[in-house]
Amino acid sequence: MTTKLEKFFNAESFCVVGASTTENKPGNVVAYNFVHSFPGKTYLVNPKGGELFGNKLYKSVLEIEDKIEAACIIVPARFTPQMLEQCGKKGIKNIIVTTGGFSEIGDEGKVLQQQMLQIMKDYNINVVGPNCLGLYSPALGYDTMFLPDSRLKRPKNGSVSIFTQSGAFGAAFIDQLSRLGSGQWVSKFISYGNASDINETDSLEYVGQDPDTRLILIYLEDFKEGRRFMNLAREISLKKPIMGIKANRTETGAKAGASHTAALSSNDAIVDDLLRDAGIIRVITWDQLEDCVLAFGTQPLPLGDRVAIITDGGGAGVMASDMVSDCNLKLAEFSPEIQNKLDQTFPSFYATENPVDITGSATAEDYRIALETVYDDPNVDSIVNLCVAVIPDLDIDEYINITKELAKRKEKPIATSLIGGEEAVFATKELLKEDIPVFDSPGRAVRALGMLSDYSKYLRKNGIDPKSILVEE
Amino acid sequence: MTTKLEKFFNAESFCVVGASTTENKPGNVVAYNFVHSFPGKTYLVNPKGGELFGNKLYKSVLEIEDKIEAACIIVPARFTPQMLEQCGKKGIKNIIVTTGGFSEIGDEGKVLQQQMLQIMKDYNINVVGPNCLGLYSPALGYDTMFLPDSRLKRPKNGSVSIFTQSGAFGAAFIDQLSRLGSGQWVSKFISYGNASDINETDSLEYVGQDPDTRLILIYLEDFKEGRRFMNLAREISLKKPIMGIKANRTETGAKAGASHTAALSSNDAIVDDLLRDAGIIRVITWDQLEDCVLAFGTQPLPLGDRVAIITDGGGAGVMASDMVSDCNLKLAEFSPEIQNKLDQTFPSFYATENPVDITGSATAEDYRIALETVYDDPNVDSIVNLCVAVIPDLDIDEYINITKELAKRKEKPIATSLIGGEEAVFATKELLKEDIPVFDSPGRAVRALGMLSDYSKYLRKNGIDPKSILVEE
Repeated sequence: MTTKLEKFFNAESFCVVGASTTENKPGNVVAYNFVHSFPGKTYLVNPKGGELFGNKLYKSVLEIEDKIEAACIIVPARFTPQMLEQCGKKGIKNIIVTTGGFSEIGDEGKVLQQQMLQIMKDYNINVVGPNCLGLYSPALGYDTMFLPDSRLKRPKNGSVSIFTQSGAFGAAFIDQLSRLGSGQWVSKFISYGNASDINETDSLEYVGQDPDTRLILIYLEDFKEGRRFMNLAREISLKKPIMGIKANRTETGAKAGASHTAALSSNDAIVDDLLRDAGIIRVITWDQLEDCVLAFGTQPLPLGDRVAIITDGGGAGVMASDMVSDCNLKLAEFSPEIQNKLDQTFPSFYATENPVDITGSATAEDYRIALETVYDDPNVDSIVNLCVAVIPDLDIDEYINITKELAKRKEKPIATSLIGGEEAVFATKELLKEDIPVFDSPGRAVRALGMLSDYSKYLRKNGIDPKSILVEE
Repeated sequence: MTTKLEKFFNAESFCVVGASTTENKPGNVVAYNFVHSFPGKTYLVNPKGGELFGNKLYKSVLEIEDKIEAACIIVPARFTPQMLEQCGKKGIKNIIVTTGGFSEIGDEGKVLQQQMLQIMKDYNINVVGPNCLGLYSPALGYDTMFLPDSRLKRPKNGSVSIFTQSGAFGAAFIDQLSRLGSGQWVSKFISYGNASDINETDSLEYVGQDPDTRLILIYLEDFKEGRRFMNLAREISLKKPIMGIKANRTETGAKAGASHTAALSSNDAIVDDLLRDAGIIRVITWDQLEDCVLAFGTQPLPLGDRVAIITDGGGAGVMASDMVSDCNLKLAEFSPEIQNKLDQTFPSFYATENPVDITGSATAEDYRIALETVYDDPNVDSIVNLCVAVIPDLDIDEYINITKELAKRKEKPIATSLIGGEEAVFATKELLKEDIPVFDSPGRAVRALGMLSDYSKYLRKNGIDPKSILVEE
């Protein structure tokens, strides 16, 4: 079955209605994007006529003779219904409306959106929007995000797909991903705004079956088709992880949402249960979502909940251990031969039980031994690699290499956190550059592993081998 | 009454026992610190004799003829009791022992610590340590932190004092503060390690009465004198905020703690109640502690719990609003004239009720009007200033200036968060440089205001005017 969004993304011809000749105006940016990146045929419409980026500016979409499969309308709200109708007459069935000023602004806008709905019905048109950023896919050269590259950096082609009710959230997160490693780059981005037609469930359906999507990120404030969404999610989450934010958790948030995308509040405890039941990894904060993508985008899933912690600072070890309990994980008990090896290798003032504290006397070689030893323990499912980088005898370059080497094995997830010192800042950058996940604090490193472990548990409960889920390469 | 730690910090003569001639060794670093920064008299002891940094190396502390008020012993654990005894004979009453290898490593170390305790009793010596970083005060030129400046950056003189059971935590946090604004610089730092004598309660007593300390940060794993600590905290928290981490929250954490500073677990729910009752602001994670210091170190206390949110992205507003409920705050209801002004000024597609959403069309001038208007509303106690910086018409330099101007008024706390785009990174840096608090996410901005509000509420409940607490200048 062809999903609605497939027809948008697979269009071989595209028309920008409202292609502006003023640099950096939304209609100018989108025209630029399509003329320069879209491999299919691009048509530009501007009532003044003329030329833009070497392409003819048609005065009306009705002037164009060729068949057009998809379009983006970027004109002020009050002209949008008229343009939509012209597109309908032209036979364009897949239309993105990015402009705001519809139901989200109250009665006046609601009238306009109602007019749109009638036209959509009359001409059998599918619409993304209004009041959104629309669609983006770097691999397909498809980009209706009307902010210029200087404002909004685009991530390169990757395997993360995102759909979001909030355009601003989407823009901010897209920009964030563009500065991260390749494991967090993007396949498809869908900002559906007021969801006059295409909604969260259509989006999930599309990215669920999209072979290039291996990780699904969501930002929702409400559901247009809650039941269908949960049913779909239950199937898809067994094949690829779905994670994200369902905002409007509280009455206060719901009040804010009401004046935003006209979302209705829902009883959050029920929503929480439904999301968990459907295998969706729910995060509450922006930080947590960043950590979640970093972990899922770069690490294999653990096969159990037993964590080993290596640290050179007792306090960091205690804080991480506290978080182990909070995050539904367990401290691993090392197998006898592994414990024995640690006991034999390290001086008596190192704590060799889990968490292994190689103290302020630690060298990079101590880290190598500790990390490799616990990595090989069949009783260990994931590893937290903590480093207080101020200690005197640690060669930070060596520490970086050791961490890289271990992370490359990809048999078990490993989460690193460095605190203190210029060295920590330096090592964090170096490791992130190569898609090795480093988290801002020991607690966040543990929390990230907890999310991987929760998903692994969900899969196993449903008879799925976590090794069959390949997010990272 | 003179507190125990006062005698340490106010010493006019100081001896480094174990002054090493090998560069960057602990005994070398501490000798360097005192010779170069301590305004009193510094004596160095090294059994080999000779000279270091232009100072004579005495072969034994007993060779020194002058009176010595305080000392730091930095020799291997097994020699420490002997050196302590010599200091005792010499009449030194205040001694810092930084070396590790005592009760924290098990039976062998416990014997050594027992020997120390006997000598301390025999000679009536007060000890900070063992197994710690000791004491630091930039204003007093006092610094036993044995890590060189290249590894551990020192914050300049400020009004934050810290005491910590974990040296590594302390070092990492000290380094962190050194890179932040002046509102987060340090007055006194106390790392007491195994607490053979000076403990958390002595530390609290000292920083509580120290006139240069206006903000108290703590990291604890257990209490040596829980009851006295809580009684003291109850008094001190009415004069200056006390905030920090009490780790060992969980059984898992307690297990890690046991092999760290020999801490015992305690029932965390009870601890939590006691801390709250004593007016201590408890945070769970490193991130939260950073945010807490940033807010308390730079912002005035709010006089109530009513928050105004200004945003240019609906999603950010919804997430922040959700957090308002989570953090014991309320969304302010604007007074009629303020609401009227917002309605009159902004176009109809801006959401003018709280949260005020000036949308992706926002300019810096829109931000100025929105922020200044709600700041002046008597119904608003604190302000959340959110900016999704990817929007096309925002002049980021102007936005920075507007935020700075408003923050300078210091009548109400204002918490800023920028997401998305290079502009966000740039503005964050610029604002933090001038001690204007910017948080990593909308949720963290709200959470920080929540902590300020909780403390204000505690003060008011106890009949204290929050305006009498001057943390920031």
